[in-house]
This record gives sequence, C-alpha cells and structure tokens, in this order.
Amino acid sequence: MLKFIVKRSDFAKKLSIAAQAVGAKTIDPILQCLLFKPENGGINMYSTDMQTFVIARVETGEYEGNDMFAVDAKLLEEIVKNVDEEEILLNYDGGKLRVKSGKSAFSLTTYASPEKFPPIDIEESGVNFEIETSILHEMIDRVIFCASTETAMRALNGVYWEIKNGYLRLVASDGYRLALSEQKIDINAELDFIISLKSMKELEGLVSGASEPVLKISCDHKKVSVKAGDITTIMRVVEESFPDYKRVLPQAFKTRITFNKNEFLEALKRTMIISKRGNDKVQLEMIDNILKLSSISSEYGEVSEEVLIEKEGEDMTINFNPRFLNEAVKKVDEEEVVFNFVDDLSPMQINSRDMGGYMFIVLPVRA
Amino acid sequence: MLKFIVKRSDFAKKLSIAAQAVGAKTIDPILQCLLFKPENGGINMYSTDMQTFVIARVETGEYEGNDMFAVDAKLLEEIVKNVDEEEILLNYDGGKLRVKSGKSAFSLTTYASPEKFPPIDIEESGVNFEIETSILHEMIDRVIFCASTETAMRALNGVYWEIKNGYLRLVASDGYRLALSEQKIDINAELDFIISLKSMKELEGLVSGASEPVLKISCDHKKVSVKAGDITTIMRVVEESFPDYKRVLPQAFKTRITFNKNEFLEALKRTMIISKRGNDKVQLEMIDNILKLSSISSEYGEVSEEVLIEKEGEDMTINFNPRFLNEAVKKVDEEEVVFNFVDDLSPMQINSRDMGGYMFIVLPVRA
Repeated sequence: MLKFIVKRSDFAKKLSIAAQAVGAKTIDPILQCLLFKPENGGINMYSTDMQTFVIARVETGEYEGNDMFAVDAKLLEEIVKNVDEEEILLNYDGGKLRVKSGKSAFSLTTYASPEKFPPIDIEESGVNFEIETSILHEMIDRVIFCASTETAMRALNGVYWEIKNGYLRLVASDGYRLALSEQKIDINAELDFIISLKSMKELEGLVSGASEPVLKISCDHKKVSVKAGDITTIMRVVEESFPDYKRVLPQAFKTRITFNKNEFLEALKRTMIISKRGNDKVQLEMIDNILKLSSISSEYGEVSEEVLIEKEGEDMTINFNPRFLNEAVKKVDEEEVVFNFVDDLSPMQINSRDMGGYMFIVLPVRA
Repeated sequence: MLKFIVKRSDFAKKLSIAAQAVGAKTIDPILQCLLFKPENGGINMYSTDMQTFVIARVETGEYEGNDMFAVDAKLLEEIVKNVDEEEILLNYDGGKLRVKSGKSAFSLTTYASPEKFPPIDIEESGVNFEIETSILHEMIDRVIFCASTETAMRALNGVYWEIKNGYLRLVASDGYRLALSEQKIDINAELDFIISLKSMKELEGLVSGASEPVLKISCDHKKVSVKAGDITTIMRVVEESFPDYKRVLPQAFKTRITFNKNEFLEALKRTMIISKRGNDKVQLEMIDNILKLSSISSEYGEVSEEVLIEKEGEDMTINFNPRFLNEAVKKVDEEEVVFNFVDDLSPMQINSRDMGGYMFIVLPVRA
C-alpha cells in the first residue's frame, strides 16, 4: 500500500518531464512505466529509456504505506492533465492504483513486478559546475538543430560538450553545417563528451520547463547529471569521438556582408518557393551594396530577390542549400546578421555583429 | 499577352478559394492550374477538379492584351501570400508569366495549351433562392462532420440537400449517426440532391471566407451554383438516392435528460482516456439526478465520472461510441444539452433545450 495526495499543477509538470524520457513502443513494458518509490521520507518518481534517467521528488504531504508501484506513464500523464480539481489522491493497494479527483475516479492496472525497474546510479562524481538555466537553454537551442538526425552516424547524432579554459562549449554538426555556442563557467577542469540527440531533446524539455534559475551539473566520461531543483536528469554519454571541428572554422575572410535579418529571411522564403520545386539551391550574388538571391526550377520557372547589404571586401557569387541558411539565420537573435566568406567553395561563417558567443558554419554547394 | 495589376489582399483571398478546388496530384496537369481569361471587360479566374468549378472575377484596373493563360495554382497562391508589397504586376507574354512585387521578380512556366482547360456551364437554371452567408455556414458546420468519409459509400459520402415546404434542410449520416439542420427560405419549389463531401468542404471554404452577407443559390438535378459576390462555386450533384432518413428519427421518448454542456464534455474527455485504450465504449447510467459515465479497458483499468442532470422519465443504462457523443454535443451551441432516449437499443436524439433548428441522432452500441 502507498497512499498520498498531490497538487495537480506541480505534479503535472513533473509528470510531463518524466514521461518524455519514456520510450515509444518498447520491448520491455516496464520502460513505459513510471516507478513511484518511498525514499528518505518522501516519494520519488523514476522514468528511463535506458539512455536518459529522470528522478523527480513528488511534492506530497504525509503519505501512508511503504510499497513501490509502477504505472503506465502516458496514461497517468493524460489523466492528471485532464482532471479538474487541484487536489489528487493516489492510492496504490492490491495491485491497483486508484486516482481520485473531484467526481473522477480511476482504477488503473499497475506493473506486476515494480522491483524490476532498472536501477539508477545517482552518485555524483567527476566535474561539477553550475550554470544559469536560461543560458543553458539558449545554448542548446542554438546548436541542437544542426545535429545529424541519422542515428547510424553516432558521433554526429548528438551534441558535443567541451569543457576547457573556463568555458563550456556546445557543438553540433551534420557534416554540411555546424553550430557552436559557448559560455564562461567557473571551472578549471577539462572534459569533453557527446550526448545523444534524443537525450539532448529530453534535457531541453527539462531546462525549458524548469523554474529553478540555476542548474547543477556533474559529469564524467560515463554520464552527465543535470539537477533542476527536485528533478534530476542523468544522461549516458555516447562512446564515440567527435570530429575535430576546429579544422572547419574559417580563418581569413575575403568578403563580409551585414544585412537586416528579417529582410533577408523574407526574401529567402520567397526564393524557396521556387527552389523547393527545383534543385534546392539558392544563389547569392553580392555586387556593391546589393545581395541578389535567385533560384531556378526547370519545371516551374525562376525567381530573383534583392536585399540591401553593407559589404567589406570583394564581390562574389556562391550557392547554398536555402534551408541551412534559413535555419541558421533564424537563430541569430539580433536585428543584423553577418556572413563571412572565404571563397565560393569554402565554409561560410554566420554570426551576429557583436559575435555574442555563438556562430554557424555552412558549406556551400556547387553551382 | 495579358498584363494586369492586382491588390494582394483581394487576390490572395480569391486565390485561396480557387486553389482549394484544385485536385492533389491529378493525371491531367491542367487540373492543377488556374485559368486566367479576359471576358466581358474584366479578367476571370477558373479552377476545377471536374466535380467542383470555381469562377472568380479578379479585381484589376485596366488590363493590356487579350490572351488567356493557365498557371500552377498552388505555386501562384504561395507567391502571392508571401510577397510584401500590396501591388502585384502580372504579365503573361511568350509563354511565361512574370510576377513582380517590390524587389521580388518571378518568371513562371505556364501550361502550353490553356484552351484545353475544361469548359464550365454557368447557365443558371432550375430553383433559385437566397440565404444569409452566416446561416448557411452554420448549417454546413453542424452536419458535415457526420458524413461518411468512405468514398465507396457514394450516397452517404456527402450532404443531402432537401428543399421542401419553404425550408432548406441539410442532412448527413455515416450509418451510425445523423445530423440535421434546417432553415426557412423564401421558396415554393421542391428539390433534393446530394453534394459530395469534397465539394461540401470546398463550399465551406468559400462560405467561411466570403465577405458578402447573402449568397445566391441556383440548383437543378444536375448541379448547384453558389454565388458569393464575384466568386461562384458550381458543384456537380452526386447521382445517388439518399436513404429515407425520416425513418430513424425517434418519435416517443421514455427518458429525457438535460445537463451542462461543458461539464459533460469534460467528464466524457476523461472517460475517453480509458475507452480509447479499451473497447471505445462509454456507459451512461442515469439514476435520479446523476448521470454516471464509465468505461473499462482490460489492459489499463477503469474510470467513472458523475454529471448532475435534470431527468424526466425512467432511469436507464445505455452504451455509446464516446467519439460520436463528443462530436455531436460540441456542435450544440448552447449551455444546456438535451438527450432523448427511447430504449437502450434505439437511436438517441441530441438537441439544445429550445430545439433551434438542428439535431443529432446517435445509435447506441451493445454493452
């Protein structure tokens, strides 16, 4: 038996973070469950897909009984989201979990052997540091879209974390483009590792929903744990080496242009009406203070657009996948965006005017 | 050659209605095009999927040239939606359509033989009447969700129009439920026909976007034309007979309950958390002034909910597909909803307290 009362708002929030770490259809049905377990005078809620582990302390008052139980995560999440009273009574007894709130009464089947729930090693070890929640959220948001979605490319199907010289740097790349974001942190140690894209998305969920202003992170070569108040996410490190990304960072630039972000994005959007019906290419032609964007579809026709620019260096013509430009430029959160070119075959660097601790690299395509 | 200037806001609205009548991937590429044709001192825009025909008068000033042309509908719609100036110049010449607005310039391929665009018979004949746009919109919205989506059931895969005794009545049914909506109109004739679900959805698009307060409708046994200002939609009638729906309308009721719409919908939503994981059934049990909703899933557990009711007649227990109840009750646009029961195997009637010219019939399921 285990009987306790929760507040809907707090419980729903924790449930939605914990339920994210639950796999879709899994072979072992216990991985679709949340485990509730009385520990250290309170109740902890566990979930895992064997790669990411989430532990949340449930805010309850007094509780009765001392049994643990495991119940389908998505089912409980949906019930708690939809009941209309703030107070919810959970009562596990005789293999059934009774959930009562207002005039709603559920009696849910629980998993027969909750003790089979995978054990989690929450011992803190290795490197420890703190970071502002909003800063880590921004850093993740700026790089995660560049990670490869091909799970077979294990090293690129994730985000590279590099702790060095008092900085935390996140890097993601799919081989055609790269995103980098860095932040000064109070730490002397050096450490680097890869976190899978799936774990990163779960971490993003935790970080974006967290009301704690500061996160406590501890990591070693095996795992990373991120603690936001009474919710901890533990992620297994991907055992691969990240490619030497510094080799693709351009050094000397021949041409640099600065332009209004929204004007560029609007012109690019219209160019993409043709390019997506054609060969998915946009040509950028920079002459004096005009950037001409153009695209051709043999079946549907062609388009040209003009954007005013400030230019330093030589005129030039270069081709890109428009989607890569669109996604990177959108992440520059200033009014003005800078493109830095070496030549028409070399990686191009995108940044804000003041550099602001992040940049994007995009490879051009052939004409 | 044909050259004219349009205003973006008016043109975009007409384009989106005309583009709706364009088929998805069709065998004949001209059916994916819009035809622009100078006629009677102005330019008309045509589109069709051979079942629905749309003719819109394009608001232009003076125009030059007298050629017609056909261009991909979705392409032009997307361009016009995305240009950022209000004035758009269209210039058809030498097989190309040039579209210019601000700093955007498109040159689009056109269809080689625009004269092959299917001819449309717009002669008005048969029965003519007028109806308020907002009223027809509401009538369509109240019945269209009950139409069968199985295209093989040609008679039910549409909406039945019945003009009789000075009323227009729309009826739709998928064999398990039925929706009926009626409105007094100023007409003496009698006529009935079926319009396909696809045409009805296009008509709904026209009616919901129309700024004209009154529609002009003319119909015969072959086609119906609905005119909203300078846009006309002509729909071919489905050559099938609609089943005799009056036979399923319940006559004498044994039990009638009245309840708050939102309270019921909230309770039903929670019941569906279990029923969708189970056998898709909800049991309604009416005892005194309590309606108990319950559902069982052999795998996940069970739920019970209570809703306060006003009851006339006997206590009763009856089972339904919860989705059918949910969709019908949502369409009752009053605070209170009435369920009328004959017995646990007969069709149940749903209506608002004051009846308001519409009702829904839902067949129960076996326990």
